[in-house]
Amino acid sequence: MPTHTLLLLPGDGIGPEVMAEVEKVLAWLGANGPAAFEVTRGLVGGCAIDAHGVPVSDADMAKAEAADAVLLGAVGGPKWDGVPYEIRPEAGLLRLRKDLGLFANLRPAICHAALADASSLKRELVEGLDILIVRELTGGVYFGEPKQIVDLGNGQKRGIDTQVYDTYEIERIARVAFELARLRSGRVVSSEKRNVMMSGVLWHQTVSALHARHYPEVQLRHELADALGMKLVQAPKQFDVIVTDNLFGDMLSDVAAMLTGSLGMLPSASLGEADPVTKRRKALYEPVHGSAPDIAGRGIANPLAMLGSLAMALRYSFDMGAEADRLERAIAQALAEGHRTADIARPGEPTVSTSAMGDAVLAAL
Amino acid sequence: MPTHTLLLLPGDGIGPEVMAEVEKVLAWLGANGPAAFEVTRGLVGGCAIDAHGVPVSDADMAKAEAADAVLLGAVGGPKWDGVPYEIRPEAGLLRLRKDLGLFANLRPAICHAALADASSLKRELVEGLDILIVRELTGGVYFGEPKQIVDLGNGQKRGIDTQVYDTYEIERIARVAFELARLRSGRVVSSEKRNVMMSGVLWHQTVSALHARHYPEVQLRHELADALGMKLVQAPKQFDVIVTDNLFGDMLSDVAAMLTGSLGMLPSASLGEADPVTKRRKALYEPVHGSAPDIAGRGIANPLAMLGSLAMALRYSFDMGAEADRLERAIAQALAEGHRTADIARPGEPTVSTSAMGDAVLAAL
Ligand SMILES: CC(C)[C@H](C(=O)O)[C@@H](O)C(=O)O
Ligand SMILES: CC(C)[C@H](C(=O)O)[C@@H](O)C(=O)O
Repeated sequence: MPTHTLLLLPGDGIGPEVMAEVEKVLAWLGANGPAAFEVTRGLVGGCAIDAHGVPVSDADMAKAEAADAVLLGAVGGPKWDGVPYEIRPEAGLLRLRKDLGLFANLRPAICHAALADASSLKRELVEGLDILIVRELTGGVYFGEPKQIVDLGNGQKRGIDTQVYDTYEIERIARVAFELARLRSGRVVSSEKRNVMMSGVLWHQTVSALHARHYPEVQLRHELADALGMKLVQAPKQFDVIVTDNLFGDMLSDVAAMLTGSLGMLPSASLGEADPVTKRRKALYEPVHGSAPDIAGRGIANPLAMLGSLAMALRYSFDMGAEADRLERAIAQALAEGHRTADIARPGEPTVSTSAMGDAVLAAL
Repeated sequence: MPTHTLLLLPGDGIGPEVMAEVEKVLAWLGANGPAAFEVTRGLVGGCAIDAHGVPVSDADMAKAEAADAVLLGAVGGPKWDGVPYEIRPEAGLLRLRKDLGLFANLRPAICHAALADASSLKRELVEGLDILIVRELTGGVYFGEPKQIVDLGNGQKRGIDTQVYDTYEIERIARVAFELARLRSGRVVSSEKRNVMMSGVLWHQTVSALHARHYPEVQLRHELADALGMKLVQAPKQFDVIVTDNLFGDMLSDVAAMLTGSLGMLPSASLGEADPVTKRRKALYEPVHGSAPDIAGRGIANPLAMLGSLAMALRYSFDMGAEADRLERAIAQALAEGHRTADIARPGEPTVSTSAMGDAVLAAL
C-alpha cells in the first residue's frame, strides 16, 4: 500500500476548526482507502508568530519541502495587526508559496445549483457557473524588488513596489491554463493592463506567441483587467479558464468567488513545476476564504471549502481520483440532504455546526 | 455676463456621437443661461494619431491648459491596436491627466431606481446605491519608473512596472475623500494591499495619520483591495466614499459601475489642485464608459453619462450649481418619461437613438 506524506497547517482563526474536519476524513480514508497517510502538523501565520516569533519556522518549511502535499487552513487576524511587516502572518503563506515554487494557483469559482440563491447576483446569471481562475503566484508585485519605504526627509516618505515578470514565468503559467482548457471548454481569457503596464505588454505578447505556437486549437481572448472585472459582474457565465498575474488574480478571483454566493465552498490548489523524473509537483491546498476572525472559535464555520481542498489534494497530488470524486459526491450529498452552515443558509433555515457538517460528509462517505 | 472656456475632445468610437448631444445642451445654455461659453475643439486618442501622429498634440495640450474645463468623450479602438506603445490612444488621456495634474478622479456609482432592474445584482441590493469612488489618478504604477521591457538574451525578456507613492500624494487624495465625506454620510473606506505592498503600508499609515489629525469626526475604515472587491459584489450599499490608488481605483470603480447596471449613465470628474489665488482647479470631465467600438457610428449610444459629465463641469468648474441641478433633473425626467437607449432598455422595451435621447433632455430643460 503506498504511503503519502501530508503536512497540515491549520493556521489562525477558523483554520483549526475546519482542519479538524479534514482529520476526520483522513482517518476514514486511512481505514477505508487504497493508501496510507503519514500526517505531520505545523504552524503558520499568527500562531507561528506566537510560538516561534516568525510566521513560519525553518523546521516547518523543511516539513513542507519534504511532504507530498501541504494542506493549509487560513492565516491572520486583528491580534497580529501591529507586528512588524517582515513577520506579519501573511509572510508565512508568501514564504511557503515562494520557497516551494508554487507558481500556479488554481481557483475554481463554481456555483452549486442548491446554493445559487445565496449569490447577490440574479440566479439565472450564476446557476451552473464554473470558472477556473489560473493565477500566477510567485511573481509580480508580490515579490519584485525594490519593495521598500524610503524616508525622503521633510516628513515625506516614498513607498515603492515593483511588478516584474520574465518571459518564462508568463509562459509556464499560460501553459497550465492552456492545458487545463483542453480538458474543459477549450477557451482561455488572458488578462492584464497592457494599455498602462509594460509587464502587461510582455504578458500579452508572450501568451499570444505561446498560443500560436503550441495551442492554436484553444480559443484565446484578451481582456483588460478592469474590463474583465466588469464583465465578471455583468455576465460571468461567458468565462471558462481565466489566466492572469498575481495581483489581478488576487482581485479577480475574489470577485469571481463572491459571485457564487458561497465562499465557504471554494477550495484552491497551488502547484509547482513537475519534477522531470518523478513528475511529482510540490503542492499546497487551501480554501479561498480567509481566517474569519469574527466567527472564529464558535464552531460555526463552513468546513466544505477545506474538505474540497483535501479532495483536490487527493486528485492532483496522490493520484486518488476515485477517492476525490467520492469525497466531492459526499459533499454534494450533505448539501442535498439540506445540511447548511450559517454562511450558506437562507434566512430562517436551520443551520448546523462545523463538526456536524463534517459528520454529514463522513456519513455520506 | 461671465464667459467660461471649455475644450471639447470627443475622441474615438461613440465619443463624437455623445459629444454632439453636449453641443446641443451648450447651445441651449448659451441662449438661456447666466453665462457664455467659449467652446474650442480638439482631438485625442486614435483620431489624433490619424491626424497628427500622436494621441494628443502639443497645440491641443495648450488649449487644455488654457481652458476652464475639458470635456472628453472616449479614446481607443481596435483600429489602433498595432500602434507603438508610446503613441497608443490611451497615452493621450494619460498625458492630459498627468500634465494637467488631475490627481483626483471622482467616480460616482449611482443606481437610478428606474434602472435598477438592469443590474445583474438583485434589485434590493442595488436600488438606491450611491457610492463615490475617489481614485488617485496621477501616481502609482501608471507613471512610476522604471517602466520598461528589458531584453535578457536567450529569448527571455523582463517586463517591469513600478508602483510609487509619496506621502503628499496620498495626503492630498485622502483630503479630497474626507472633505467629500463630510458633505455626504461622513464615512470613508480606504483601500490598499498593505499585507503585500509597501506602498500599501505607507498609504494606510498616511491616511490614518491624516484622519486622526484633521478629520476625527469622519468614520474611517480600511479594507484590503481584494476583500473590498468582494464586499462590493456582496453588499454594495454598505459603502459611501471609497478612496484608493490609481490601479485599485481603476478595477474597483469599474466593478462598482457595473453593479449599477447602467454604465451609460455614469459621469466622472478629474480635478487638479486648487490655485492658491484664484481657487480655480484644472478639470476634465468624462463618462466612465469607453469608446464602445462595437456600436460606434450607429447612433444608438447612451449620451446621458456624457451629459452628466457636463452637469459635473457646470457644478465644479463654472459655479453653476443651479444649472447643473436643472440638467440632472432634465436627465431624470427624460428617463421618467420612459426614453431608453438600447443599453438601458428592458428586453422588448422600445428604444430611442442617441440624438432622440439628447432631444428628450433638451425638451425637459
Ligand atoms: C493573505 C494574502 C497575502 C493573500 C494574497 O494576497 O495573495 C490572499 O488574499 C490570497 O488571495 O490568497
Ligand atoms: C483607458 C485607460 C488608460 C484608463 C485607465 O486605466 O485609467 C481607463 O480604464 C479608465 O479607467 O479611465
